[in-house]
Amino acid sequence: MNDFLDKPDDFCGVVGIYGDPNASFNTYLGLHALQHRGQESAGIAVSDGQEVRKKLGMGLVSEVFNEQNLKELPGHIAIGHNRYSTTGGSAALNIQPILIYHKDGNLGVGHNGNLTNSKILRRQLEERGSIFQTTTDSEVILHLVAKSKEMDIIHKIQDAVRQIKGAFSLVFLTENKLIVVRDPYGFRPLALGKFNGAMVVASETTAFDLIGAEYIRDVKCGEMLVFDSEGMRSFSPFEKQTPAHCVFEFVYFSRPDSQIFGEYVDKTRRKLGKNLALEKPADADIVISVPDSSNTAALGFSARSEAKFEIGFIRNHYIGRTFIHPSQEKRDFNVRLKFNIVGGVLKGRRVVIVDDSIVRGTTLKQLVQVVRNAGAKEVHVRISSPPIKNPCYYGMDFPTWKELIASDRSVEEIKEHLGADSLEYLSLDGMLDSMPKENGQHYCTACFNGKYPVEIDDLESNNSK
Amino acid sequence: MNDFLDKPDDFCGVVGIYGDPNASFNTYLGLHALQHRGQESAGIAVSDGQEVRKKLGMGLVSEVFNEQNLKELPGHIAIGHNRYSTTGGSAALNIQPILIYHKDGNLGVGHNGNLTNSKILRRQLEERGSIFQTTTDSEVILHLVAKSKEMDIIHKIQDAVRQIKGAFSLVFLTENKLIVVRDPYGFRPLALGKFNGAMVVASETTAFDLIGAEYIRDVKCGEMLVFDSEGMRSFSPFEKQTPAHCVFEFVYFSRPDSQIFGEYVDKTRRKLGKNLALEKPADADIVISVPDSSNTAALGFSARSEAKFEIGFIRNHYIGRTFIHPSQEKRDFNVRLKFNIVGGVLKGRRVVIVDDSIVRGTTLKQLVQVVRNAGAKEVHVRISSPPIKNPCYYGMDFPTWKELIASDRSVEEIKEHLGADSLEYLSLDGMLDSMPKENGQHYCTACFNGKYPVEIDDLESNNSK
Amino acid sequence: MNDFLDKPDDFCGVVGIYGDPNASFNTYLGLHALQHRGQESAGIAVSDGQEVRKKLGMGLVSEVFNEQNLKELPGHIAIGHNRYSTTGGSAALNIQPILIYHKDGNLGVGHNGNLTNSKILRRQLEERGSIFQTTTDSEVILHLVAKSKEMDIIHKIQDAVRQIKGAFSLVFLTENKLIVVRDPYGFRPLALGKFNGAMVVASETTAFDLIGAEYIRDVKCGEMLVFDSEGMRSFSPFEKQTPAHCVFEFVYFSRPDSQIFGEYVDKTRRKLGKNLALEKPADADIVISVPDSSNTAALGFSARSEAKFEIGFIRNHYIGRTFIHPSQEKRDFNVRLKFNIVGGVLKGRRVVIVDDSIVRGTTLKQLVQVVRNAGAKEVHVRISSPPIKNPCYYGMDFPTWKELIASDRSVEEIKEHLGADSLEYLSLDGMLDSMPKENGQHYCTACFNGKYPVEIDDLESNNSK
Amino acid sequence: MNDFLDKPDDFCGVVGIYGDPNASFNTYLGLHALQHRGQESAGIAVSDGQEVRKKLGMGLVSEVFNEQNLKELPGHIAIGHNRYSTTGGSAALNIQPILIYHKDGNLGVGHNGNLTNSKILRRQLEERGSIFQTTTDSEVILHLVAKSKEMDIIHKIQDAVRQIKGAFSLVFLTENKLIVVRDPYGFRPLALGKFNGAMVVASETTAFDLIGAEYIRDVKCGEMLVFDSEGMRSFSPFEKQTPAHCVFEFVYFSRPDSQIFGEYVDKTRRKLGKNLALEKPADADIVISVPDSSNTAALGFSARSEAKFEIGFIRNHYIGRTFIHPSQEKRDFNVRLKFNIVGGVLKGRRVVIVDDSIVRGTTLKQLVQVVRNAGAKEVHVRISSPPIKNPCYYGMDFPTWKELIASDRSVEEIKEHLGADSLEYLSLDGMLDSMPKENGQHYCTACFNGKYPVEIDDLESNNSK
Repeated sequence: MNDFLDKPDDFCGVVGIYGDPNASFNTYLGLHALQHRGQESAGIAVSDGQEVRKKLGMGLVSEVFNEQNLKELPGHIAIGHNRYSTTGGSAALNIQPILIYHKDGNLGVGHNGNLTNSKILRRQLEERGSIFQTTTDSEVILHLVAKSKEMDIIHKIQDAVRQIKGAFSLVFLTENKLIVVRDPYGFRPLALGKFNGAMVVASETTAFDLIGAEYIRDVKCGEMLVFDSEGMRSFSPFEKQTPAHCVFEFVYFSRPDSQIFGEYVDKTRRKLGKNLALEKPADADIVISVPDSSNTAALGFSARSEAKFEIGFIRNHYIGRTFIHPSQEKRDFNVRLKFNIVGGVLKGRRVVIVDDSIVRGTTLKQLVQVVRNAGAKEVHVRISSPPIKNPCYYGMDFPTWKELIASDRSVEEIKEHLGADSLEYLSLDGMLDSMPKENGQHYCTACFNGKYPVEIDDLESNNSK
Repeated sequence: MNDFLDKPDDFCGVVGIYGDPNASFNTYLGLHALQHRGQESAGIAVSDGQEVRKKLGMGLVSEVFNEQNLKELPGHIAIGHNRYSTTGGSAALNIQPILIYHKDGNLGVGHNGNLTNSKILRRQLEERGSIFQTTTDSEVILHLVAKSKEMDIIHKIQDAVRQIKGAFSLVFLTENKLIVVRDPYGFRPLALGKFNGAMVVASETTAFDLIGAEYIRDVKCGEMLVFDSEGMRSFSPFEKQTPAHCVFEFVYFSRPDSQIFGEYVDKTRRKLGKNLALEKPADADIVISVPDSSNTAALGFSARSEAKFEIGFIRNHYIGRTFIHPSQEKRDFNVRLKFNIVGGVLKGRRVVIVDDSIVRGTTLKQLVQVVRNAGAKEVHVRISSPPIKNPCYYGMDFPTWKELIASDRSVEEIKEHLGADSLEYLSLDGMLDSMPKENGQHYCTACFNGKYPVEIDDLESNNSK
Repeated sequence: MNDFLDKPDDFCGVVGIYGDPNASFNTYLGLHALQHRGQESAGIAVSDGQEVRKKLGMGLVSEVFNEQNLKELPGHIAIGHNRYSTTGGSAALNIQPILIYHKDGNLGVGHNGNLTNSKILRRQLEERGSIFQTTTDSEVILHLVAKSKEMDIIHKIQDAVRQIKGAFSLVFLTENKLIVVRDPYGFRPLALGKFNGAMVVASETTAFDLIGAEYIRDVKCGEMLVFDSEGMRSFSPFEKQTPAHCVFEFVYFSRPDSQIFGEYVDKTRRKLGKNLALEKPADADIVISVPDSSNTAALGFSARSEAKFEIGFIRNHYIGRTFIHPSQEKRDFNVRLKFNIVGGVLKGRRVVIVDDSIVRGTTLKQLVQVVRNAGAKEVHVRISSPPIKNPCYYGMDFPTWKELIASDRSVEEIKEHLGADSLEYLSLDGMLDSMPKENGQHYCTACFNGKYPVEIDDLESNNSK
Repeated sequence: MNDFLDKPDDFCGVVGIYGDPNASFNTYLGLHALQHRGQESAGIAVSDGQEVRKKLGMGLVSEVFNEQNLKELPGHIAIGHNRYSTTGGSAALNIQPILIYHKDGNLGVGHNGNLTNSKILRRQLEERGSIFQTTTDSEVILHLVAKSKEMDIIHKIQDAVRQIKGAFSLVFLTENKLIVVRDPYGFRPLALGKFNGAMVVASETTAFDLIGAEYIRDVKCGEMLVFDSEGMRSFSPFEKQTPAHCVFEFVYFSRPDSQIFGEYVDKTRRKLGKNLALEKPADADIVISVPDSSNTAALGFSARSEAKFEIGFIRNHYIGRTFIHPSQEKRDFNVRLKFNIVGGVLKGRRVVIVDDSIVRGTTLKQLVQVVRNAGAKEVHVRISSPPIKNPCYYGMDFPTWKELIASDRSVEEIKEHLGADSLEYLSLDGMLDSMPKENGQHYCTACFNGKYPVEIDDLESNNSK
């Protein structure tokens, strides 16, 4: 799967820091490390114990924030958010964290994931006279908190999160507290760390590296953590559930250098590649990856194959917002813009392209073509996960069912579409075999086999309209 | 009074249009003409009958809008707003119109004026679990509308505006309606016009000139107008009150070329100048104004005086955001940056400076100084309104009581402060005598004499804290 | 004449400072005060005695410069330039000061005026192998300096300026010198002042006001001033000529608060208005000006007339880069955007519009129309200078002969074109009678009567092509 | 060597197109593909046969150009330039192409390389009265062309290039010609291609891929190509020399997917890695590269070694202009910002880092550190070229002699500085053995062994001062 051309990068990254005099700056670094989780917008809310401030903007973290505006965000508690919209459109109004005033003061929230009953909740709230200024799940959650009859913010948030369903890794900020909640299935990763006496949570451990924080453990499935002057307290507001970690975080989404669900992503991907080579070998000279996401899988494939690992595509670092002339809208222009094709490696070779997944297949089709044009004798495609046949309701922004190339096509048909000499996918068992399981991990594989661990209330609510 | 240096320009301007295929463009022109009513931010919300869109931004109308983004605002119904914050701070989050989603769909609102019970209402709403994302009165009003038990939007808005107190000229927008409400005292002006079969309301008639609209009449005190497919309907949701038009709109705020409260502003200002000359004459050679706001008053003064009208100050058109070097922070640098001083006119003359009002006195003090430095023999100051001794709670953004130079100083003391040879103010009677009254107009003079026509609930609510 | 709509403002303003630790900042202030002399671009070159730096940009002075980039221009010698192109197109490449490296080091120059033999000189230089990177006169002058066989920079510049013809007020900067040259006819003004032990020259004295400098005297016609560690030295590189001051500087171009050619501009304009009223009276109720350029002439007119001075047009301060919708391209939209029309003053009156000059007549025609639409009974136009019948080759950016409305039309025909009830111009004698002459001043009136004091070599050179 | 942190990327890239109706757009694509050769500024000059236009700007190609401004560059002849300054400082004034007016019309030029006698030439020109507005070699060349006594532009350029020494791949543009010159030593690459009946030259063949052009051959050492209405003509203005191709283009600078000096860069790098492994083996578990420049060398190393190729560093694509907090200026922050470190791969392993070269060693020192911190048991460094001991005068922007870590340190000392367990460089012979030689190629190895093929006149000229 190729993040930029097949589809914009998806969901979100969240960071929360408590007890750091440079909380907004370190949150900024954390967001920077999580940039791959959302390039549409970025925001930080910060509290100095009394006043809460925020800064939001469209664009990359490095475009939204600078030395000057970070200085204007003083305080020791901060939450940050990168987003690519999974719900709510991409308009500027939906940038998170959302910050509100309610009875008890200020409350900010950032959300990674997707609720499956937010439309229903929103309709109920509107019926009771609530107004909405965004189309995000987060605003629904804030309404629930503000409307709770509980006495304090901790119990109000517990009350609120018990009403929501789906995938959520949440960071809340008040004048004097950082509160963190992870849904009982643990769909999305959320890690806990510490540095210089401060505490930090982040979607992936790679955020800890830049901050210089040490990984402690994951926030547990269904756990709520409260950070304030009393230290860190853990609550369990939910009934216990069998975990349903998003297998796609391992397959494609998280950074290879992160540790999620108890394992290094890189290690899992190598295993996927090895299993792929054993299960679906290819008689070829060289193996190439689609950088950067399938690099490790391709290395793993090569390790269990006769074919040597080579670098056939080099990602172009300077793409920016490149203008494309109408006359250039030919078949392979986009991939040529994105990748430099190393012709010398491909010429006269039998080539295996290892990719992590196929969503629409647009980019992969072009890549097969340019490899062939570069003189490859054969082009085989191997995918380190099974065909994606179903939409995700838990925060992975797959296109609609219709656009998923595997939703109504056989592997043979997809092969034809790609123009490859052969195409093989890793099996579901082969994929799950590559995942860590020694600490009771269980995975959500809904996009592959349609088994949704949490019901999708909003779907029914749509149907009943 | 000088708008830029003594204080940023105050309150707001609103525009509403129904039935024009270029509704957003003409709203933009209207806002452009009302730019003097607020330079901090501008916004337009528009509906094409189905979808509601908006564009907001910090800065001047011509900075926020351009050909491209106006094209992205298609529709025949639009509301627009220029703001300088009277309540709610000046942060980007408070830019109007505010646009929400509620049970019945979209609702947008722009507000000119200031509520005197919004804090109380807000607190009550928060107690019931409402959340706020801005600190504006407008968001309070939107909550009241959304919470109303009435059946349709017209009655819901009526229900809401009956709960608010103070000054309000409001424009609401829904998918298919423009709804306009003016408070029963008519504090702020609001005029009704038509063009090419479309209807338009605006804070001042000057907005009609650029649009090419014809003035019909003012929106009446306490009137609600609904524009939709049934045409224009008038409602009277309030008990009738004695009007309390803001006299300061005539004295300083509105454009001279506007017609408000039934009279041309320019004509009233000339009368103020004439009455001032009769009541408080000055033995001088020339009369100069502080452009542009006191030009007409100075002309009127000159017409009833021996002193000739001359141009002593020329406003600099190119100020922009001029950087001031620390070494230049001398007494008169700011006024020199803002005004070109015509030395040839002043040298050896006995000069009367006519100004419309004194707020802090900072600029006027510098002007007296530069006139004296230019060689004037005597410098007399005449003010075409009485001393401002009290804050305004109805939307005029006077500084706090403490900062009002006349709040605790005698005229003699202010004269000393300014360094003038004489200082005289027009009397309250002299001022009111200049105002139109033939159609039952009554005026609010609270800032001069402390008689507030509407109680200030929020004040007590603050005290009781 | 109206600067913005009839035509972009013309020529240029120059500033030079020697001996001021904040030389670039005070040059910036000077340029700010001279903004009316050129809004297209601005630039400053500065030397700290060793290194020469510059900063140039398109736009207003306040847009090009800010606190940060002024800090990056340290030094005690500076020259500055505002430009609207008279020669050389308006492209970014022509922004001045131009700064070059030549045999003797750095040399920068800013030029106000227009050479009449620059094309010929340029062709000669090109024949000898010179290359040009701009299309300005200034680059020609720099080539002449660099090619001079003289021993030092002072004599090289003398050598160069003896070869050029036409109008030039020049400021040169080297590592350790400020050198100033004014052409022997003194077409353009150039004043000398001092402040805090530093010396300053500027196109108009209004620049001294912001800097806090004291006016000493004008740079004399044909004078060269050298400022360096030896103090100020005066040279006379040219043969003496009868002065030919640009009368249009008094009529329209310079600021009213400036003192040029030995007199306050404001005073001269008043005299023009008075002479106009005596020579070409009008039977009317009120006199209005076209702000700001004809304000004083209108006051002068009113002083010698029965008609009262009134404010009929108010200039809009917030024009910016206003987008105009195709549907708004009606006759009077542009003037309505630029001016607010004070209808109450005009209705039912016989009105005299006093303007300083007519170039194309476009704006004036629209103003006559809007005054009539506002209900004026009669609209008379009086112009405080004679008809402009000829192009200017000395730096006033009149349009081509064809576009000058008076070039081939009678006064009666222009009256018809404007739609006025009457139109009268001040006579040449009446105009010259208003100009100061007590110190041997003589004026260039070529644009009115075609008598060009300096031959236009480039014209012939063009013809001979 | 790591391009971003050790030093900004160096020299320049040039493109020239003749006969393409979208010449500026395709030049833009070519510059885009050559972005790695210069990120400081970009420019395009274009001719439609009559008028020559240009657009220059600081920043990346995608920042300088957009749909709108490319439309404003119509024509069928274009030259383009990416620059990182090797001579002349990095100021905006030095952006190329430089475009001048001279006797024969317009002339534009873009230069890749560095002249070794430009200071002397410049001094001579200044002595004869020439002025300079930039500090580039290109302006010197343009002066020489304009001063040539030859009759036409082709011979004038020949005359000029015979006077210059050093490295130059030049593209010239006139109203109706594209002229291309490569120095007789062929220091820098320059390739010739064709597409849709148009001709294109570019620094590297990778530029042809995006344009969709076909590689024909290299522009020969010492060849001049003229493209105009008569087609393509080849001239040989220079005496024949033994070639001196820059070996560093293969080692580090060119893109792996380019073909230069008759061979694919990628293939040569692999050979360098293989020779390195054979010559200087390491007893280790894994080999990692410093992406992207040493990827292929690392793969080659691994192919001749027991150590497996792994991905230890992942380049961060979102660096942008990242603000760095003072508190973060710790040892390894910069590399952490630039690279994601894949800890899982490194832990407990004996690691070989293969890099292409060491300039200052700053980044490599940090990389050794982070690999060690990630738990590596041993860290060995292998460099696929010999120690860089001498500055380059032909366009490779090495730091001064003093800053080159190998200029006065032994390999052992550098190893200590890096903190590595071992350090080995490829020998000069081993390097040259990896280079193509079958077509008479010879290489410049001056930076390694100090044998400069062309004398450095400017050096002596400096010394004689």
